[in-house]
Amino acid sequence: MKIAIFLFDNYTALDVIGPYEVLSKLPGAQIFIVGTEKKPYTDSHGLKIFAEYTLNEVEHADILLIPGGFGIDYILKNQEVIAWIQKVDLTSAWTVSVCAGSLLLAEAGLLKGKMCTSHWGRKKQLRSYDVMVAEGYERYVKDGKIITSAGVSAGIDMALYLVSLIAGDKTAKIIQLAMEYDPKPPFNCGTPDKAPKEILESMKRS
Amino acid sequence: MKIAIFLFDNYTALDVIGPYEVLSKLPGAQIFIVGTEKKPYTDSHGLKIFAEYTLNEVEHADILLIPGGFGIDYILKNQEVIAWIQKVDLTSAWTVSVCAGSLLLAEAGLLKGKMCTSHWGRKKQLRSYDVMVAEGYERYVKDGKIITSAGVSAGIDMALYLVSLIAGDKTAKIIQLAMEYDPKPPFNCGTPDKAPKEILESMKRS
Repeated sequence: MKIAIFLFDNYTALDVIGPYEVLSKLPGAQIFIVGTEKKPYTDSHGLKIFAEYTLNEVEHADILLIPGGFGIDYILKNQEVIAWIQKVDLTSAWTVSVCAGSLLLAEAGLLKGKMCTSHWGRKKQLRSYDVMVAEGYERYVKDGKIITSAGVSAGIDMALYLVSLIAGDKTAKIIQLAMEYDPKPPFNCGTPDKAPKEILESMKRS
Repeated sequence: MKIAIFLFDNYTALDVIGPYEVLSKLPGAQIFIVGTEKKPYTDSHGLKIFAEYTLNEVEHADILLIPGGFGIDYILKNQEVIAWIQKVDLTSAWTVSVCAGSLLLAEAGLLKGKMCTSHWGRKKQLRSYDVMVAEGYERYVKDGKIITSAGVSAGIDMALYLVSLIAGDKTAKIIQLAMEYDPKPPFNCGTPDKAPKEILESMKRS
């Protein structure tokens, strides 16, 4: 089970590590952290994760995972990356994204006419492509072999679901228990429809 | 707001990145990834995160965070690390752990007589110290300035709670919404009391 995770500067760390933690526990999982160069990539707050493979070293993968982050807008214009995503998707069993990563799939034409999602703050941008954007705040949306996730933390839920599709419910449940994934957020404001108006307003201003 | 995160080989990546993603969004947050050496540290599945500071470069921090992972048993015997944790804790505002990271706090004597927790599979080991281990599956346990978390994913809940203590509920809610943290695990088996017996048994066998 070959899993390729694409990394770029100004990614969101949890977009990468949420699904990574789940998928790396799949029986036989081999993880390939892939970048345009073999180097440490820096997230929005300075964390450095190493990409040990370049694009041309990983042209096939069972799962292709595209995370999001503020850097996505810059990477959208990188034709080498777009061509790589298109190539890997040709033979992937699953092509998945977290947060704004779905924009890169859309830019590569992989979401054309498909139902998909993204971080709530990125949905307007996603709608500018020829795609169908889910109206609600589903954690993930599956359309054929493509699964797109909502913002940041949603990649954990998506990856557990993906494990259940690949290896069955029992394996997914074992991984969930190993991660003690019984979340209890201290507040109930993880989506715009649940957050108090003042919270939403202060985010729009910032 | 100086935040020191200790890294060692065979850490669990989500133990680090769950709280990192939350705490790095604290206003004025400065993150210091600290190791015994300045080098990339490898998690249990091969991911490399860079530690950019050595122990003697970071002797004070507002928040000291100790993640867990299989490598914790090896690092428990490292007297240089134990002494560093004791030193940083002397002036920290908060000393916190995720998963098996609480064992390192216990080994350093910081949990003596205190109420604490750990990954469900590590509680027996934690009880071997002179500490009070919470009976249930609370996501985190606060005793004075020390907060210990349950397994892996619990660090996200703990960090949001910590943000609310430091910067108020509004800031914590803004961060939760930014991360779209509205978790919906596909299964309800994140703790041993919720998991089917066959799942628990298969984990004990493995």
